[in-house]
Amino acid sequence: MPNAFDNPTPGAKRIVISIDAMGGDRGPAAVVAGIAMSASKNPDIHFIVHGDESVLTRLIRRRRISHRCDIRHAPRAVAMHEKPSHVMRHGEGTSMWSAIESVRNGEATVAVSCGNTGALMALSMIRLRKIPGVNRPAIACLWPSRNPQGFNVMLDVGADVKADAEDLCQFALMGASYARNGLGLDRPRVGLLNVGTEENKGRAEMKAASDLISAASDAGSFDYVGYVEGGDLPSNRVDVIVTDGFTGNIALKTGEGTAKLIGDFLKEAFAATPLSRIAALLALTSLRRLQKRIDPRRVNGGVFLGLNGTVVKSHGSADATGMSAAIKLAFQLAKSGFQERLAARVASAGSARQDAPNEDGSSRAE
Amino acid sequence: MPNAFDNPTPGAKRIVISIDAMGGDRGPAAVVAGIAMSASKNPDIHFIVHGDESVLTRLIRRRRISHRCDIRHAPRAVAMHEKPSHVMRHGEGTSMWSAIESVRNGEATVAVSCGNTGALMALSMIRLRKIPGVNRPAIACLWPSRNPQGFNVMLDVGADVKADAEDLCQFALMGASYARNGLGLDRPRVGLLNVGTEENKGRAEMKAASDLISAASDAGSFDYVGYVEGGDLPSNRVDVIVTDGFTGNIALKTGEGTAKLIGDFLKEAFAATPLSRIAALLALTSLRRLQKRIDPRRVNGGVFLGLNGTVVKSHGSADATGMSAAIKLAFQLAKSGFQERLAARVASAGSARQDAPNEDGSSRAE
Repeated sequence: MPNAFDNPTPGAKRIVISIDAMGGDRGPAAVVAGIAMSASKNPDIHFIVHGDESVLTRLIRRRRISHRCDIRHAPRAVAMHEKPSHVMRHGEGTSMWSAIESVRNGEATVAVSCGNTGALMALSMIRLRKIPGVNRPAIACLWPSRNPQGFNVMLDVGADVKADAEDLCQFALMGASYARNGLGLDRPRVGLLNVGTEENKGRAEMKAASDLISAASDAGSFDYVGYVEGGDLPSNRVDVIVTDGFTGNIALKTGEGTAKLIGDFLKEAFAATPLSRIAALLALTSLRRLQKRIDPRRVNGGVFLGLNGTVVKSHGSADATGMSAAIKLAFQLAKSGFQERLAARVASAGSARQDAPNEDGSSRAE
Repeated sequence: MPNAFDNPTPGAKRIVISIDAMGGDRGPAAVVAGIAMSASKNPDIHFIVHGDESVLTRLIRRRRISHRCDIRHAPRAVAMHEKPSHVMRHGEGTSMWSAIESVRNGEATVAVSCGNTGALMALSMIRLRKIPGVNRPAIACLWPSRNPQGFNVMLDVGADVKADAEDLCQFALMGASYARNGLGLDRPRVGLLNVGTEENKGRAEMKAASDLISAASDAGSFDYVGYVEGGDLPSNRVDVIVTDGFTGNIALKTGEGTAKLIGDFLKEAFAATPLSRIAALLALTSLRRLQKRIDPRRVNGGVFLGLNGTVVKSHGSADATGMSAAIKLAFQLAKSGFQERLAARVASAGSARQDAPNEDGSSRAE
C-alpha cells in the first residue's frame, strides 16, 4: 500500500495537507480563505490544493500564499447530489479523487474536503482501502462536552447505516485511538450508546457489542463505562461514544439542530424589547463566550477512521473559519502520527477480540 | 373492551383524570402539588388519585383540594429499577396498576404517571390492550419547534426498540391524529426520520415504510413530506416525526441533553465577570423568555398511543410545574375525544394500508 508518514515526530518538519478546493457549497474562494487563515496561524503546514488551476492560482495569489501551496489541476468537481456509486466509477479527474490521491501516494499526510460525504467515503474506501482488521470504516465527530477537554468523540456518525457487534468494538478501538491522539487523553472513557443504561435495556445485539468492547478495553488502553444514553453525550461520564452510523448521524444532527434552535431563540429573546436590546449589548462578551463554546465551526471536521490514510470531512457549508478548524484538526492528527498508531492499535487488539465472545451472527456484507 | 368516554364534547362536563401519585422521583408531595396547580387553573378537571391513602389524604387536605379528588388506596408502588416483566406479573396492588384500572373501567378518560416508563407501558399493554389494527403501541413526545404551534410531535420515543415498515406507517397515522387533537392541526405534515433526505439514502427498510406512509396519507388526512433529518426536528418543515423507539429515544435525550448543556454554558458565561453578572440582571426578562420556550417541563408528557385508553407518562423527575403540564395535556386529549378519533382513524386507514405495498418481511413478534 503506497503510503508514507515520514514525519510522525511533533514539530520536527513541515506537515503536508491535501485540500479538495472544489467540493463545498461556498466554492473554492471560501476554501482558499480557510487555507490562508491556517497558513498565517501555523508556519509548519504546507498545502497541496486540488481543483481548477486557473481559478485556484488567482485565489491563492490574491491571498499571497503561493509559496505555501502546490496547485494540482483537476478538471472536474464532484457535485453534492451525485450518487457515491456513480462517483466511484467515474470519479477520476475530480478534485476529490486527486486530493485523496495525494494521501495515497504519500505526498500528503491528511486530506481535507468539504464535498459530498458519501462520495468522499466511497472514493476514500476504494483508493486508500481499509486497514487490516477493520471491517467497516467510521466517521468520527467531536461533540461539545462538560468533560475537561471540552469535547467528546462520537462515531460512527454516517459512514454506514449499520454496524454489527464486532464493528462497534472496532469503533471503540478507533475512537479511543482518535481521542488519545486528537484530544490528548491517555486512557479515554468509552461508552456504547443505548436506550437506558440498565443491562436489560436496548436492542439484543447491544449486549454482544458491550461484551466485546469490555473485553477489548485492555488491548485498546481505554476504560469501558458501559451503556450511555443520549443525555450523556455532552456529559463528563464519557470521552468516546460508540454507535452505528444511522443512530450517530441522527444524534449529531439533532444536537446541532437543537443548538441552532436555542441560538435563534436567544437572539429573538434579546431582540424583543428596547431594554432587552440594551441588555444584549452589555451581555455581548458573555454571549460571545457562549457562542465560542458551542460554535459548530470550531468542531468542524468528521474524521474517516479505518483507512490507510486519514481523511477529514469538513461541513459542506464551511466558511473560512470552519475550513481552518478542519485543517487544524488534520494538522494535529498528522503531527501526532495518528494513522500509524491507530493501525497498530487495531492490529494489537485483534488477538484480544478473537478471544472475546461474538454472539452476533449478522452478515458483514457492505 | 370496558372503556367509557362519556364526554368527548368540549366543555360540556367535567373531565376525570386518573393519577398515579407514587411513582415519581420526588414522591407524592410533588405529584399532589401538581394536581393542586392544575385544579386551581382548570375547574373542569376532577382527579382520581392512586397511592398510599393516609399519605395522600394528608397531602390533599393540606392543599385544600379534597373536593376535587377521589383517593384510591394502593398499598404498593412500582420502583424505578423494577423490570417491566416482573411488574407485569406482580403489579396488582400498585398505584400504577390502580391508576390504569380507572381508565380501563371507564371512571377516568386519561391516566397520568411519572413512574417507571417500561413498567407503565407493560401494564398499559396488558390491561388496556392494543386497539384493533395496531401492532406496536408508541410513545409520542412534544418537541420545541419553529413551526407556528411551537411544537412538533415525535414518535416512537421508547415504547419499543424496533419497528418495521408497517409499524412506522401506524405511527404516522397515530401521530397525525395526536397532532390534530393535541396541537389543533387540521392536516399535519408527517416526515420519516432518516439519514439524508435523498431517496437513495438510509436503511433499506426505510423505503418500504416511506411508500406505506405515502399511500396512507389520504386516509390519515395528513401531508407526507418524505424523509427528514435530525436537523429538521425543530424546523417548520414538519409537524409529526416518525421513527423507531431506539432512534427516537436517543434523538429525544440528545436534544434534551444539548439544551441542558447550552443552558448551563449560558449561566457560566453570565457568571464569568462582574460586568457579565450585571448584564445578566438586565437580560433577565429576555433569558426568562428564552427559558420559557425551551423549558422541558412545559412539554412534559409522553403519550402512549395505540391502546384502548390514553396514558400520559410524565418525567420521573417532574416537579409541580412539570406534573401540571402533563395533566394539562391529559385534559386536552380527554376533552377532544382523542381516543375515539384515533381508533376510528386507524380503522379507516386499514383498507388503504392493505392496498399499499409492503416490502418488509420482518416478523412482528413482540
